Amino acid sequence: MNLIERKFEKLGTDHAPGQEVRQSGDTAEFNLPGEPLPGTPVDFSHGDVNNNAFAPTPGALEEFVAGVHRGGPQAYTEYRGGAELREQVAGKLTEFTGRPVSGAKELIITPGTQGALFLALGATTTTGDKVAIVRPDYFANRKLVEFLGAEVVPVRMDYLTHTEGAGLDLDGLEAAFKSGVRTFLFSNPNNPAGVIYSPAETARIADLANRYGVTVIVDQLYSRMLFRGQVYTHLRASSINSDQVVTIMGPSKTESLSGYRLGVAFGAAHLIDRMEKLQAIVSLRAPGYSQAVLRTWFAEDPKWLQDRIAKHEAIRDDLLRLLRTVPGLAVRAPQAGSYLFPRLPALGVSLHSFVRALRVQAGVTVTPGTEFSPDATDSIRLNFSQNHRAAVQAIERTVQLIERYRA
Amino acid sequence: MNLIERKFEKLGTDHAPGQEVRQSGDTAEFNLPGEPLPGTPVDFSHGDVNNNAFAPTPGALEEFVAGVHRGGPQAYTEYRGGAELREQVAGKLTEFTGRPVSGAKELIITPGTQGALFLALGATTTTGDKVAIVRPDYFANRKLVEFLGAEVVPVRMDYLTHTEGAGLDLDGLEAAFKSGVRTFLFSNPNNPAGVIYSPAETARIADLANRYGVTVIVDQLYSRMLFRGQVYTHLRASSINSDQVVTIMGPSKTESLSGYRLGVAFGAAHLIDRMEKLQAIVSLRAPGYSQAVLRTWFAEDPKWLQDRIAKHEAIRDDLLRLLRTVPGLAVRAPQAGSYLFPRLPALGVSLHSFVRALRVQAGVTVTPGTEFSPDATDSIRLNFSQNHRAAVQAIERTVQLIERYRA
Repeated sequence: MNLIERKFEKLGTDHAPGQEVRQSGDTAEFNLPGEPLPGTPVDFSHGDVNNNAFAPTPGALEEFVAGVHRGGPQAYTEYRGGAELREQVAGKLTEFTGRPVSGAKELIITPGTQGALFLALGATTTTGDKVAIVRPDYFANRKLVEFLGAEVVPVRMDYLTHTEGAGLDLDGLEAAFKSGVRTFLFSNPNNPAGVIYSPAETARIADLANRYGVTVIVDQLYSRMLFRGQVYTHLRASSINSDQVVTIMGPSKTESLSGYRLGVAFGAAHLIDRMEKLQAIVSLRAPGYSQAVLRTWFAEDPKWLQDRIAKHEAIRDDLLRLLRTVPGLAVRAPQAGSYLFPRLPALGVSLHSFVRALRVQAGVTVTPGTEFSPDATDSIRLNFSQNHRAAVQAIERTVQLIERYRA
Repeated sequence: MNLIERKFEKLGTDHAPGQEVRQSGDTAEFNLPGEPLPGTPVDFSHGDVNNNAFAPTPGALEEFVAGVHRGGPQAYTEYRGGAELREQVAGKLTEFTGRPVSGAKELIITPGTQGALFLALGATTTTGDKVAIVRPDYFANRKLVEFLGAEVVPVRMDYLTHTEGAGLDLDGLEAAFKSGVRTFLFSNPNNPAGVIYSPAETARIADLANRYGVTVIVDQLYSRMLFRGQVYTHLRASSINSDQVVTIMGPSKTESLSGYRLGVAFGAAHLIDRMEKLQAIVSLRAPGYSQAVLRTWFAEDPKWLQDRIAKHEAIRDDLLRLLRTVPGLAVRAPQAGSYLFPRLPALGVSLHSFVRALRVQAGVTVTPGTEFSPDATDSIRLNFSQNHRAAVQAIERTVQLIERYRA
């Protein structure tokens, strides 16, 4: 196997969310015995943006159409996005995060938050560099590091044993920084566990970053979807040096606008400059017409947003109640976002076989925990941004399947 | 300067098309004396997709809106694009290129052709590899090589001294392949020169690729816009080994659909597999809703397409007539696409100053030749997909400016 073959060997997407249709899996191990459990199929690998679940922000399509009618200036923006729109979005993010954002110098619009993550890591990391990655965390993070020829330095997060904070191993983080890590990439709220870093954890991350000169990329994709009683601390508003932090967000989740593929990154101007240079050769610019949809962002009717969050919280509570009836299953209530990450009781089959049986026999698609951490061989991730009733019934079937395959 | 700073130093976008608004340029050299030449401003750095120039394919927006209404399945496709749509597009590309394309295994839908170029080169090239790049060719090609930590091996194209074929230095190409080049990336029709590789040139490229085991990535973005009497040879339909060629196209140019950011790459299945793995971490997938617009591709009313090509040819002819009145200016008639790449007579100012004066004094935006080849210090590129009358008047002003600054 040559160098590039080895590189792509590490970037497998066979079990990645959205790719399930590609698993033909005609092996005996995959064809587990068991009667089908009837019910509406639910794909928990991503949120459902249809009208009977969580549709896009009202007015989004109208803004898109208006963008098409504006023509050239909307189709061809600067690579970092239209200047006027950047000003507008920067103003909203200044207010949201509590620290000024310059639309001219500190913000880039990208094709989805995935695009922003790639550009941010590509702008800070090159061959041989060390990057600290939390376990568990968003499945693409470690792959980005592999593609760039850099080295993953894992840091453990004990989300299940904590009730406050994310449970990041802060001493482990310091040891990683001491070992020569140049960049730290993490999600807050955490994807897949749905936990929020406490003010104390955030302060310590800022302090360590300053002390060891580490650039921090923080993926805050779910930071608008906070459940009752939760407090969120923006890392960029902490004591961290402003030239050492890039924040990533996007209107894809709370707002169900994923189909437009929009994200933003904001922070250190010299890194945003590099990200634009990289965007020029990776995708040139975010979709011109789609950019117009960002006009609806942080401009939603407050009642609509409140109602959306309350509906997610209600689904969360119902699913948690069901999952907690399963002996030996461990799950922490997500504080934000739309992910549940239960640890299953011991099963008599492998995790991948169980995930496959769940899809084939019960019409329930979930993502295996191993996408988020090599250690999470007993966990599954569910995106509960779904039709409430269908999600509850799907979890009832999931509980039955767990019993069917319990060790 | 550390490793990553050096890397980004090579990826400058200050003079790249679409970035002109960012050039503040308050230096004396940039503030050349001269009266303004009034007239409708024309931005030749890209095509004009407004209604008074070349609007998107009829029905494109309707397909997009229908995609939004389909909801989830359109928003979240497989990373390589929706399966049914890939089948449909593969059928059309089989017919267009004269060699079968499998929608399941040999095609990926990307965010723009820029996305496809990045993925294709990222799938074939890693640190230390050698990549053959034509001079002149599309401005991002060499930057892609730089970003991947690979080495550019330039191959000369004498487009001005040939009337048939592109004028590629085929012996130079063989020498490059002999020196250890693993990948050859080029555009056909060539961007910026608008010339087409002859059947003999294509056959020789195929022969050399097979002999030296080189993977060829061919950017055919303009291959639908062929002017009268022109013959086009698809490299993938030549004798080249099918596992050594990836073809890139997109509906952004002839069809004026750039604002939707759509491209496709098709060819060697093992490379398309790698491209999908890379897309998963670079942008996840092409814009879900925008993918629906590909349904209009190769499904246009033939009369509409014929008329669109004829209109471009008429603009080409009028602009060529004007440019050829300028003593000392050399230009070859483009055989395809919408670019003109004239070599200017000797000027008393630098190329970048002239380009700046042209924009400030005459309202004419063009791209300096140095974006396409370090040797093209006396050429400018113009995308003539514009309102016909405004383009003619802009070139009249350009001719006046050339006289104003002639050496």
